[in-house]
Formats: sequence, C-alpha cells, structure tokens
Amino acid sequence: MADLINPRDLDFLLHDWLKVEELTAYPRFADHDRATFDAVLETARQVAEDKFRPHNRAADLAEPRLVDGKVEMHGDVGPAIQAFAEAGFGAAHHDVALGGMQLPWTVQQAAFAYFQAANISTAAYPFLSVAAANLIHAHGSDEQKSRYMAPMIEGRFQGTMVLSEPHAGSSLSDVRTTARAMPDGSFRLTGSKMWISGGSHELSENIIHLVLARIEGAPAGVRGLSLFIVPRYRLGADGAIGADNDVTLAGLNHKMGYRGTVNTALSFGDAGDCRGELIGEANKGLGYMFHMMNEARIGVGVGSAMLAYAGYQHSLEYARERPQGRHPGEKDPTAPQIMLIEHADIRRLLLKQKIVAEGGLALGLMAAKLVDQQRQDPDETVRDESGLLLDILTPIIKSWVSDHGLAANEAAIQILGGAGFTRDHPVEQFYRDNRLNPIHEGTNGIQAIDLLGRKVVMRDGAALALLERRIWSTIARAGGVPSLTEDAVALGAALERLLSASSKIHGAMEQIGPKRGLANASAFMEMAGLVTMAWVWLEQAVVAVDRLEARPDDETRRFLEGKIHACHAMHRLELPAVKPLSEMLESLDDTVHDMRAEWF
Amino acid sequence: MADLINPRDLDFLLHDWLKVEELTAYPRFADHDRATFDAVLETARQVAEDKFRPHNRAADLAEPRLVDGKVEMHGDVGPAIQAFAEAGFGAAHHDVALGGMQLPWTVQQAAFAYFQAANISTAAYPFLSVAAANLIHAHGSDEQKSRYMAPMIEGRFQGTMVLSEPHAGSSLSDVRTTARAMPDGSFRLTGSKMWISGGSHELSENIIHLVLARIEGAPAGVRGLSLFIVPRYRLGADGAIGADNDVTLAGLNHKMGYRGTVNTALSFGDAGDCRGELIGEANKGLGYMFHMMNEARIGVGVGSAMLAYAGYQHSLEYARERPQGRHPGEKDPTAPQIMLIEHADIRRLLLKQKIVAEGGLALGLMAAKLVDQQRQDPDETVRDESGLLLDILTPIIKSWVSDHGLAANEAAIQILGGAGFTRDHPVEQFYRDNRLNPIHEGTNGIQAIDLLGRKVVMRDGAALALLERRIWSTIARAGGVPSLTEDAVALGAALERLLSASSKIHGAMEQIGPKRGLANASAFMEMAGLVTMAWVWLEQAVVAVDRLEARPDDETRRFLEGKIHACHAMHRLELPAVKPLSEMLESLDDTVHDMRAEWF
Repeated sequence: MADLINPRDLDFLLHDWLKVEELTAYPRFADHDRATFDAVLETARQVAEDKFRPHNRAADLAEPRLVDGKVEMHGDVGPAIQAFAEAGFGAAHHDVALGGMQLPWTVQQAAFAYFQAANISTAAYPFLSVAAANLIHAHGSDEQKSRYMAPMIEGRFQGTMVLSEPHAGSSLSDVRTTARAMPDGSFRLTGSKMWISGGSHELSENIIHLVLARIEGAPAGVRGLSLFIVPRYRLGADGAIGADNDVTLAGLNHKMGYRGTVNTALSFGDAGDCRGELIGEANKGLGYMFHMMNEARIGVGVGSAMLAYAGYQHSLEYARERPQGRHPGEKDPTAPQIMLIEHADIRRLLLKQKIVAEGGLALGLMAAKLVDQQRQDPDETVRDESGLLLDILTPIIKSWVSDHGLAANEAAIQILGGAGFTRDHPVEQFYRDNRLNPIHEGTNGIQAIDLLGRKVVMRDGAALALLERRIWSTIARAGGVPSLTEDAVALGAALERLLSASSKIHGAMEQIGPKRGLANASAFMEMAGLVTMAWVWLEQAVVAVDRLEARPDDETRRFLEGKIHACHAMHRLELPAVKPLSEMLESLDDTVHDMRAEWF
Repeated sequence: MADLINPRDLDFLLHDWLKVEELTAYPRFADHDRATFDAVLETARQVAEDKFRPHNRAADLAEPRLVDGKVEMHGDVGPAIQAFAEAGFGAAHHDVALGGMQLPWTVQQAAFAYFQAANISTAAYPFLSVAAANLIHAHGSDEQKSRYMAPMIEGRFQGTMVLSEPHAGSSLSDVRTTARAMPDGSFRLTGSKMWISGGSHELSENIIHLVLARIEGAPAGVRGLSLFIVPRYRLGADGAIGADNDVTLAGLNHKMGYRGTVNTALSFGDAGDCRGELIGEANKGLGYMFHMMNEARIGVGVGSAMLAYAGYQHSLEYARERPQGRHPGEKDPTAPQIMLIEHADIRRLLLKQKIVAEGGLALGLMAAKLVDQQRQDPDETVRDESGLLLDILTPIIKSWVSDHGLAANEAAIQILGGAGFTRDHPVEQFYRDNRLNPIHEGTNGIQAIDLLGRKVVMRDGAALALLERRIWSTIARAGGVPSLTEDAVALGAALERLLSASSKIHGAMEQIGPKRGLANASAFMEMAGLVTMAWVWLEQAVVAVDRLEARPDDETRRFLEGKIHACHAMHRLELPAVKPLSEMLESLDDTVHDMRAEWF
C-alpha cells in the first residue's frame, strides 16, 4: 500500500526548505529539536496508518444514521479519535501547563496532514474540536477555559462551529438565531442551524457548540452577532455532566462524500431552555470566529492537498505496476506491454497531481510557519509581515488548492481507468470527499471576492506588495541557477501581470463600482493561485538544486530531480494560463457582469 | 422541476440551425416532415419524463446486486426499457420493413438526448442494444439479422459490446479470448471479459453478446481479432430460447456513478461449451467494431453534454429561486437578500455550464446530421466530406465534451453549495454519472492520440483541411455581422494557431518520432476542442442574430440574446486558453516526455 505522505518529501519540506528546527530559537519551542519534531510526526503517521486509514472506506459505505434519535456511525471512528487524543494531538500545540507539548503549529499542521491523507472524515471530529478549543483559548474567560476547553483538549469533549442557518448558508449577515439575556448573566438561545459537522454523536461525553447568534436588540448584520458556548449537556458547578441543554438534532444531511463526518441540522431552544454563555464581548462574535478562520481555511487547503496527495500516491503505485498497451510507433503486437507509467499522457496526469499535492502541502506548511512566526517572533516587523502574508495567502490556499485538488483527484481516477471508477480503489472516494473543500469555510467564490476586494488593497496594498517582494527575492535567487533561469523569468513575467491586473481593476473601481469591479474575481484568484504555486515550486527547486550539489545518494538524487522537473512543469505547463487571464482582467471584461438572468 | 432540455433550445438547434427538415429531401426520409420529427421528440420527452426520470435517484441508491446468482436491480428499470421499445425507439432509424420509422439519425440522437438527460443509467441498456443491433445490421448475415437483430429491435432481446479483458483494459491488441472453429462452422469461445455493461440481467428474454475474440491460429495484435455473436441462451432453429450457452457472470463492478447500469465481469466457456457465430469475415472484428465507433463515441459526448445540461437546468432553477447575500458594496444589512443568480460569480458558473451543455448538444447533433449526410446524400463529395468531418470531430466530441461536461457538473454543485453536496439534489449524481464518460469508449488520452496522430494527418490532412474550410466559412459569415466581428476575429486567430501547431508537430515527427511527437496530444486535443466549440457557438450566434432581425416575441428575443452572449463568453473567456497551449505545443515542449518514472 502506498505511503500516506512520501517521507522524503515531508522531510524535504520541513527541514531542507522550511528549516523548522529554527523555530526552536523561539522560547516557547526551546525544549524541542529536530528529534522531537520527527518523533511527533512518526507517531502521527503510525496512528493515522493504524487507526484512521483502515476504516476510511468502511465509514464511507456506512454513513452515520439516526437510530432511536441518536446518531450511529462506524465503530472504528470512536477508537480512532481516542487514539488521536491519547497520542496528545488534541493538546500538542498548547502550553505544557495545559497538558500540551508547545509544539509549533507548523509541525502540528504536518502531523494533521497524515490524518487528512488517511481519513479526512474521521479526522474532522478532532480537528473541529481543536479549532473550537483554540477559539475559547483565545477569547474565553478563565472559567470557560477550565470548564469547557480543558476537557476538549483532553479529548473528553468534542467541539463544533455553528454558523450557518437554513435560509442563508453563506450570508452570515442574515443569521436569525437569537439570544435573550437572563438576569444571571447567561443567555437563552433560540434558532435553527444548518450544515453543522459533528453536531450530534455519541463519541464524547459532551459536545461544546460555539454558536453565532444575535442578542435581542443587537444591530442588524454581522455587527450584531455574538458568540456563545452552548454545551449539549449542561455542566454542574464541578464540571460534571448535567441535564440536556435543549439542543435538538433536527436531521442528518446525506452527502456525496466526507460521509464519515456526521453533518446535521440543529435546533436550539425548542423547549425554551437552551442556555448559552457569551464568549468575550457582545456583538464581536464574527470577529472572534474570523480570528480563527485563517487556520481553518489553511486546514481546508491542506486537507484538499492531502486528498490530492493520497490519490497521487495511489495512482502512482498503480501506474508503476499495471501493464497496459505499448508506445505509439510500436508495431509489434507481441512486444510485451509496458507499464502505464511509461505512457506520456499518464506522466502528464501524474505530474499534474504531483504539482498540486506536493505543492499544496508545501504552501500549507509555509503558511503554518507564518502562523508560528506571527505569534512567536520577537521582532514586531516579522510578526506583522507574517500576519500580512498570511492574510493574503489564506484565500489562495483555501481556493486554488481545493479547486486544483479536485482536478488532481480526477486525474487519479483517469489513470486507473475503469478501475478508478469503482469502489475497489480509493481514488473515487478521494474525489467525493474533496468535493466539499471548495464549498465549506467560505465558498471559493467568496474567497475570490475576499482576495480581490479586500486582501490586495488592505493597508494600502501592503500585503500584495509584501508578497511581491518575497516572490522577487525567490526569483533573484533562482535567476542565478542556470537550470532555473527560464522558470524564474517566467514567474517574474506572470507576477508583473498579476500586479498589473490588480492595479488596473482597482484603478477603475471607483468609476465602475465594486459589483462590476469584482465580477471577475474568480479569474483573478486563478491567476494569483498560479503565481503563488509557481513561487512555491521555484522555492523548492532552488533548495533541490542546492542539495544536489552535495552529491546525495541515488534515491535522494532522483527525488530531487523530480522536484526540479515538477517545477519546470509548473512553469511551462500551468503558469502560462496567467497570460489570457490577465489580458481578460486588464480589459475589464464585462461578459460575466453583463449576462442577464433572463438570458439563461 | 426543470425541463430536461430547454424546448426553445432544441427547436433552435434542430430547425433554425441544422434545418433537419431538409433531410426529408433524401428518399429514405421522404415520408417525414417537421411535424413527424416533432411528434417523435415529444414522445421521447414524455417517455423520458414519465418512465426514466422518476427512478434516476432510486436506481442510484439501489445499485444492481447478485441474488442467488442472478442480477437484481431497481424495479422501474424494466418498465422504462419496455416503454422505450413500445414507443418504437429501438427501431426508429431502421427500415419500415424492419418495423422502423426510417427516422434520420439526427432526430434519433435528439430523442436519445432526452433519455440521457433523464436517466443515463437506464438509457444505457437500450442504447447498447441499438448499437449492437446496428452492428449486426451492418455486418451480419441475413440469418443473423433475422434470428438476433430482429428481436433486439423489437426490444425482446438486449445486446452488449464485449471487448475488454481483465489484464488489458484499453489494449485490445492483447485480447486473449479464443474461438475454436468447429466442423459445423460454429465456434467455441473461451476467455474472461471485463467492464461489460448490461452483461447480465433479467430485463429481457435473452442477451446477445458481441464478443471480440481470437480464432485459434490467428495473428497476434488487433489484426487477429474476430467478432462473434454469443447469446446468453442458445436459440432453437425456430428462434425459441434454448439452453444456457455457458456464459458465466463472474462478478459485478461497484461504481462511483452510472450505478443503475449493471457492469459485469463475464466468463465465456468455463464448461467448454460456449457457442458463438462469426460475424462477417475472420480477423476483421475490430474493423466492424470501429465502424460503429463514431456513433458510440458521439453518443458518449452527447451523454456527457446531457448530464451537463441536466445539471445546468437544475442549478439554474435553484439560482433563480434561492435568496442569498447581497451585492458587494451593499452596506445595508437590512436590505433584502438577492437571488443567487444576481451574483456575478454564479452567472459565471451558469455561463460555463450553458456553453458546455448547449454547445455539446449542438456539436453532437451536428455530428449526427453528418452521419445522415454520409449515408444518404446522392452527391459522393458530400458523403465523403461528411465522413471526413465526422472522423476528425468524433474524438473531439467524445473527449472535450466529456472533460468539460464534468467541469460543468462541478459548477452546478458549486452553485448549490452545501445543498449541492447532498443527495437531496441530483447534481452530485450527475457528476458521478458523468465521471465515466472520459473513461469508456476509449479513454480521452487515447482519443487525443487518435486525433493528433491519425485524424489530422489522414489522407494527407484532408479532414483537418476540410474542418478548416468549414470554420473559415462560418467566420466569413459572422465577420459581416457587427456584433459578432470580434468573436469571428478571435476564432480565426485561434484556428491559425491550431493549424500551425499541427503542422509544426507533424513537420518534426519524422525527426523526433511518434512517442515524443504525441506526448502533448492531450494539450492539442484541448486546443482543438476549444476551437471547435467556439465554431459551434459562432454558428449558433449567426443564426440567432438573423432571427432577432425578424423581431420575435420577448421570450424568444431573450433566448436569442442569451445565445449571442454565450457565444461572446465562449470567445472571450474560454477560447483565449488556446494561446498558451499553442505556444507550448509549437515549442515542441518536452516536459511531459522527459519526466522519468523514477523521479515521481
């Protein structure tokens, strides 16, 4: 069976490229070294292999269902989540005082990547809980931390994010769930919520819902949203599980993929007695949510990359072992069949997957390192720049990787042919699981508007300018490497096109207005993603060339040659799509904008 | 519920554009007129709506299974097939003497499109039978026609195409199933076959397998393949169903989509007594198969277009009715939500679908008309040119439409968001069903090699030259229409690029060899598909402009404006991708070819 992640690749990304060991210079990580990082990753690999991967297909075939009002699911999900918690991954990045390891987020993200590659549906439960615990950690009171967060970190409680409502999936401005303030300072919630992953199950002692709601009398729109802790079961003063908190499971959603993750409609306060605790200040709920959104969206991008990675590894193994046909021009039908991987078109499909899978993981880990630098660096400029870069990269990671991750999974199916279309192989499931990623945590259309409408202009364009400087710096380094000069030149030209399109659009924005100015935001996103991904590949290629000069062993050499060749493929086969996109954008094309509803 | 096909669109394509009524000038179709064509199509619509569409999801959820050695499937499949036969669709294009209507293939293809849009899995059974019957009609003996074909046309027997084997899916050269000649002129077959759709079921009195096998002592490779009629049950001299013919169901394949169509592994001659009848001459089996392949491949392309069409119609209806969010720039959160269709990015996703769905259907119907002209036209030049055009268009219809049909279905899911990811809506099934189309009837990779390696150079490039002339003729007509001039110029430039890339590659072929010369065949296919689809849209737009001048009613006017705007979208948003593709191809880029297996 194929590796979940090519160990050589992860090693290359974390150590040769990102030099994660340097993070141990930050006091918070001072007790770590390369050995502890590698040990954590090896544990993640083992738990993912032993506890998550084996039931990936079985849980897909036996999706969660309602039995006597309770959610029943595949029996291996619970033990997997238990193993995750026991290995310490729920707490890994937290303070030692909280039972954590003070692990850098970069290493945590890499560890999580194993679970995503092994079984993204089962991994969703602890990941949601980690995110919910992080939110309480960042904005909750000390009492909330000890009562709710601590058991989540231990793995006794699970957490959810409760935003959407049935009448307005993406439009949080229209959230109607209300919270009535009670004399004791608590709130009573009433409302219907939709698309809640992990919303109801018997995997944990309790479920801690983090719910967006509007306090009665609060302003309309997102400025009137507050965030509440709403436990499934109330807690006694001693933290013991108490009475049912009037959160009703209204139904299950039956999905195309990601089927192991129960997805629910929930009703809050049907009996008028659903109690919630306000997190932080009133009317600041969305801000708190968005505080954690970068990490969640990077997680979506990495998840998509890991599904692409899993499909890549599986189809690569298949292509190496399956004989099929002969080269064009081979006239002798008695000549032995060649392996699939010998066919040029199969290599094209593998290269496409390699670019997205390894490149997507690389980009996600780079972003995770920015999270660590933003939080830990003693230099304010580094912290600020890390945050800025994160702000502009996040929608790109979320969107571009999830769009192209799907395309990668399609390529994996194509390599296997009819076999790839059957449930005898996992590639069709990878595609179905991955299809969620362009939708959740903000659809890719919304990400595109966020990128073009907000991120490229925020702080007078500081984020885009910083990204530009970083890319030029890579181009400068690569420009001095003969084998990479051509790629460096191509990236420079594409970068110029990206900047030019951005300034053309924003230069016209005042005149044409945001509706028209942002109508082609998705095309801009595609261009930005291509430039970013080419940059990440050029970064890797520079390191690979450098390492080749040290005359490594044959296997390492082949791996590094592959990195360099994939960089060429990115620049020669993918990046040129920037050209027509930029011409369309710079012409302020109105075709999409001018299409009328009644013409369809 | 959305229409299966926009009636205004089908009318436009068949009558305004293709002028199918002109086909009645051919003696074979002389008894037809527009009214009979429309009546046939209305019957197809009704049967598709009433008998095929209602169980599309149910059959997906209850895929065929083995019970006591027999295939059980959803109970509505049989009655649907029965209704199809009773309405005369199995026989429609055949001679009146055979119980047919002598319907043009163009109209038949349009009728079939309704069934594909309604339920592609159930439609597969009669479609396969029609194809198998056509093959016997073209190459079988009179006795074979009366014994086997006639009951297939009546709908009493079903037919299959039995090519692939477990060890070599796409490589027919490696077929191992053998046929031993018996003294009585019959054959005994032995071998294992894989991916046989409709291979075993209880939907008909008998199943007539058309099996590719190698007569003992025949040459290796495809030149040693013969084609056999192998019935599931032998027929008595009087045509009565007789004994079991030693065709064993070895297993069912469990698929991602297209689940209503049972797909089987079959064993022939396990007991040494599987009897077959040779069709036509020995060692010419593959030629006979390929004789029918154009139609089968066009059918795949149209099937993919119809799944795209079904997704387009459903997501369009959803986008018109679902309120969600506000325009960028709208600051008032109490302003009412706008419908999804008001958002530019949703219109982009709808336009993409419209281009592929309506354009794919248009292209398929145009090809079907070429089939009619090739067979019926009194002028040899017309017949020859129709065949030539078909030869070059077929791989494009099969590949480009199926690749982009998938992208269209992805867009439909995206418009619905989380809802599109659930089984509460049909769009996720359309995607899963459609995923087969780039695989079967020759993978898209193989189609690309067929196009670049064979079709563009056949008869000294006559097919490509003819396609070029036809496209220039459209450009000339459109160039005189002010609103289409820009699109016409763009298409001309793209066409030049296509021709130039082809001649560059073939100019170098002798030197670099076919393996290297064809390594980028898929990129060439993408470019050829873009040019072809732009051509089809420009054709439609010319007709639409013309009809607009007659000041039609408002609804027609809106429909025609939509055609023209979709033509603009095709030329402005899709066609420009030709540019970087052509630059890559003209540089004879070796990136894919040079990637080594050991570098992955």
